[in-house]
Amino acid sequence: MTATRFDVLGIGNAIVDVIARTEDDFLVKHHMRKGGMQLIDETRAGGIYDAMGPAVEISGGSAANTIVGVASLGGRGAFVGKVKDDELGRVFAHDIRAAGVAFDTPPASDGPSTARCYVLVTPDGERTMNTFLGAAQDLHPRDIDAEAVAAARITYLEGYLWDPPHAKEAFLKAAKVAHEAERQVALTLSDAFCVDRYRAEFLDLIRNGTVDLVFANERELHSLYETADFDAAVGALRDDARLAVITRSEKGCLVVSREATEEVAAVPVARVVDATGAGDLFAAGFLVGLSRGADHRSSARLGALAAAEVIQHLGARPGTSLKELADQGGFPA
Amino acid sequence: MTATRFDVLGIGNAIVDVIARTEDDFLVKHHMRKGGMQLIDETRAGGIYDAMGPAVEISGGSAANTIVGVASLGGRGAFVGKVKDDELGRVFAHDIRAAGVAFDTPPASDGPSTARCYVLVTPDGERTMNTFLGAAQDLHPRDIDAEAVAAARITYLEGYLWDPPHAKEAFLKAAKVAHEAERQVALTLSDAFCVDRYRAEFLDLIRNGTVDLVFANERELHSLYETADFDAAVGALRDDARLAVITRSEKGCLVVSREATEEVAAVPVARVVDATGAGDLFAAGFLVGLSRGADHRSSARLGALAAAEVIQHLGARPGTSLKELADQGGFPA
Repeated sequence: MTATRFDVLGIGNAIVDVIARTEDDFLVKHHMRKGGMQLIDETRAGGIYDAMGPAVEISGGSAANTIVGVASLGGRGAFVGKVKDDELGRVFAHDIRAAGVAFDTPPASDGPSTARCYVLVTPDGERTMNTFLGAAQDLHPRDIDAEAVAAARITYLEGYLWDPPHAKEAFLKAAKVAHEAERQVALTLSDAFCVDRYRAEFLDLIRNGTVDLVFANERELHSLYETADFDAAVGALRDDARLAVITRSEKGCLVVSREATEEVAAVPVARVVDATGAGDLFAAGFLVGLSRGADHRSSARLGALAAAEVIQHLGARPGTSLKELADQGGFPA
Repeated sequence: MTATRFDVLGIGNAIVDVIARTEDDFLVKHHMRKGGMQLIDETRAGGIYDAMGPAVEISGGSAANTIVGVASLGGRGAFVGKVKDDELGRVFAHDIRAAGVAFDTPPASDGPSTARCYVLVTPDGERTMNTFLGAAQDLHPRDIDAEAVAAARITYLEGYLWDPPHAKEAFLKAAKVAHEAERQVALTLSDAFCVDRYRAEFLDLIRNGTVDLVFANERELHSLYETADFDAAVGALRDDARLAVITRSEKGCLVVSREATEEVAAVPVARVVDATGAGDLFAAGFLVGLSRGADHRSSARLGALAAAEVIQHLGARPGTSLKELADQGGFPA
């Protein structure tokens, strides 16, 4: 087996978040689906940006957030994703490297600009996302460094990779390399509407063993099995997946395997400031736990701790050292 | 008199802040003067950025922050400052316009990129600033719209304008236009080291009546009169300035005029998260009060309220409507 250099290697869309607080009216007026992610073109991006309030720019991207969370927890993380060689691309690259993550994907020198996600945060803390994929469209299988993937305990892939034209090929290449190196592959379903776009393919990935571990929130789970019956959907996922984690916001999560279904509570927070990154950071904690050989329950508790931190401030990256938080919480190093 | 269109028109360096938390060690290692602002060239900017941790980008610039504060308090604000036509320039322009401020300075189409300030926030909440002036170097007198200045009750100028080569000419042109239109001119001394660079000129501006109102913090005041004796410095400023406000962080402020010296308390906060913008937002409140005909004490209280809001979160722009805060605090509309 290749020597292990990374606990988790993530592949995803490299995005800078442009975050503004807004009222619910704004979402209605601009035809946004609250709590969801929709893809937008550059024209609509311009229109939304012109209409939205003063914003802050914070590096984002679902899998990228997860890997930064892994590093913040003291894990060794690597990320693969495409930016352009422009100002926001340099912001993305700086932030992920400064967080201690290995990031070596060459930036695109031409084509569309670095991806941006216009995130509208309503007073309830819910986030509604509008993504202009830009340079993230250009992730190709050649961007996958097979040696790095083989050197990672877990390769973590976001369902959003089904949106850009060649990224799914990069995804499949990475999964193949990982399994050939006897490594684990994890997938997040990303978003209920993303599941709606690629349901059959996602089910195939889960059923044919391309992925060993699936992360889904309730909405994504319902979308995957096209049912409003939670228990039926959980049962279906248990039959299809080797291991799955279903996150349920303040209700905690379920870790589902053939052997057992374990419920783990959320870490309570006084107020949800911005829910962006909750699922991403949950995955970070769970993956770090798993990569250290912790049991499912402990791994889920570490996930809950990381998610609780990120929803208490603006942005989807940790605002403090998660390792210190975990140490204070009595988690083993 | 020209019809009034603005309560306050600000002229300053148009800057995007790149903000990261750090330990005090970092400042020592990189030879930064804690709590101050130093000018850096592009090479040093690159070196600092490479060394600093993950950051967030939030529009800044001292006078720009003040004018956004004016708008947030329900005042009519306009801003003059130079960005480049690049991604961060568009971020700056979006944010200030989205805050309700009139901003019509044409961006530079070539030359250096939009100004950035690398802000290091230490655990005590103090901020240490490193400014790459970039496109802000290119503010010229031709960027001053005389009609807009004549239509503003108060023109507010930052001392930092002495750094770019032609901005002081823009400053002087604006002051002249304002006085010809029987308007008021206010100046912030900006930074103790800035005062050190331009002491004689700043004293001239104050003594010869180019400015009617001066804002200074304690360090700037000590620097202006090169004395460690606070009372002596206050006395000297009373002799030189028509009206001055000396801000003293948690100790509140002094409003100094020939007739009286009034002490106004600070608004207490549980914890200073990031002191960036405290002086800028104090000025916003004071200027809005003044432009509405409030007395000095009420104006200073509005300043203290605005400053207290901005130091409780990252970044130098209000995170909530200051008008609503003021309404709740019983300030007259």
